[in-house]
Amino acid sequence: MTQPSIKSVRKALIAEPGEKFKLDERATRHRDIFDDKEEARASLVEDAAHINELQDRLYGESQRSLLLVLQGMDTSGKSGVIRNVFALTSPLGMQVRAFKAPSKTELAHDYLWRIHDAVPRKGMIGIFDRSHYEDVLVVKVREFASKSAIKQRYGQINDFEKMLTENGVVIVKCMLNISHETQGERLRARLEEPHKRWKFNPGDLEDRKLWPDFMDAYEDAVEKCSTEHAPWFIVPSDSRTRRNAMIARLVRGALEDMDPAYPDPGFRPDQFEI
Amino acid sequence: MTQPSIKSVRKALIAEPGEKFKLDERATRHRDIFDDKEEARASLVEDAAHINELQDRLYGESQRSLLLVLQGMDTSGKSGVIRNVFALTSPLGMQVRAFKAPSKTELAHDYLWRIHDAVPRKGMIGIFDRSHYEDVLVVKVREFASKSAIKQRYGQINDFEKMLTENGVVIVKCMLNISHETQGERLRARLEEPHKRWKFNPGDLEDRKLWPDFMDAYEDAVEKCSTEHAPWFIVPSDSRTRRNAMIARLVRGALEDMDPAYPDPGFRPDQFEI
Repeated sequence: MTQPSIKSVRKALIAEPGEKFKLDERATRHRDIFDDKEEARASLVEDAAHINELQDRLYGESQRSLLLVLQGMDTSGKSGVIRNVFALTSPLGMQVRAFKAPSKTELAHDYLWRIHDAVPRKGMIGIFDRSHYEDVLVVKVREFASKSAIKQRYGQINDFEKMLTENGVVIVKCMLNISHETQGERLRARLEEPHKRWKFNPGDLEDRKLWPDFMDAYEDAVEKCSTEHAPWFIVPSDSRTRRNAMIARLVRGALEDMDPAYPDPGFRPDQFEI
Repeated sequence: MTQPSIKSVRKALIAEPGEKFKLDERATRHRDIFDDKEEARASLVEDAAHINELQDRLYGESQRSLLLVLQGMDTSGKSGVIRNVFALTSPLGMQVRAFKAPSKTELAHDYLWRIHDAVPRKGMIGIFDRSHYEDVLVVKVREFASKSAIKQRYGQINDFEKMLTENGVVIVKCMLNISHETQGERLRARLEEPHKRWKFNPGDLEDRKLWPDFMDAYEDAVEKCSTEHAPWFIVPSDSRTRRNAMIARLVRGALEDMDPAYPDPGFRPDQFEI
């Protein structure tokens, strides 16, 4: 099997730090990276195995952690990524946090308080299913905070993420980019399949009506918060298989760059009598 | 494939609440339940698929949670259980906490404080890799607390677990029962395999020397804390494959008894226009 190189996937998907970012120039359906679906599936399986192996080393090393931030509109596939990219990773080495509307306790603190609490500990892969970016996305669109507060947040987020990376947390941020049309299909499917119906929230239709506003908010957030230390990747997500395969490439790439190592135990095996 | 019934596995492994418990009457190598290793493997695969499906329903329902408590001497296979029994479960629905020696902050609270914090939220499967039982096991053996304090803890633990079960947390407690000999083999293997060597902690040999004391402490803990609401299961764990298969039967059984259901969304699919 030939996989597209990690470098080429990164290059195709990154939102270049410091550059103007236009969301409507980004594909939601991308056939250049994996033109064949079976190839994408095989690539995912291979990467999932490597991610498991690298995670085991990361856990052994216990000095650094990896944080995968997943953002995207409803039905863009955040849960699907979590299930498939980490299909072979032991739950022991993973910390997943799904961020919903903040609780009263959470609202009684600054917006990064609950985020900081969920940062993966050393040795772990952490996943944010939604994140602090909601505080410059839905919060902006629905005007839950003032314009000036939102404006400050981009800088605060960059500083916060920089602090994390300087302390051993490698951050991979993925926006799962779907089209308005694909969301419509998927929402209809949720309604039609009895086992998926519970996932349908009538409130999601309110967000759907505000689609252009959300896209504007994403554009701003990505442009202002794609940094050298924590760049944004815009992942075409109308095809589930390709989406999973692309994110698996990014995650494996991040882990390979970290190159975690089992620690040197500091003793000779023959010095013990068991 | 014929699987041993969940009922028969429970019956073989349970420490009957209210009865005298003798650990040395319990097998560490058990061939009655799965006489064939391949059969155990097939049973595990089948149960893992059902556990995934049931977990999805539990997550959808979001009213209750399942807590699997794993206890056992070093190398008894707690990580192996986590990896294999939940091989098909999405990390999104799991909360795993590995309890190590308590930190200063944790010690500044009662011993159940950090445990309570880690109880799985509604909809989740939680796993404790070690647990509050360490506070009546290693703490007892090494005399980190007074005899009278330990004595009180059995009752406190029973009350705490009862409160949890009354609030929708189903608790399955498994002691992974290995022989002293098997531990010796596995510790030697850790030393010999370079990729496993980091897991070897010379301090483990100190615990090994105190094996009979640990067994006594387990015997007390199991006898005093195997209750109707949260019984202990003693899982023969010298064979990894059978151990995983037996625990998968217990976990699947607990989930089937819970019989979680996707919530009724309270609307008709045709009332929305998307």
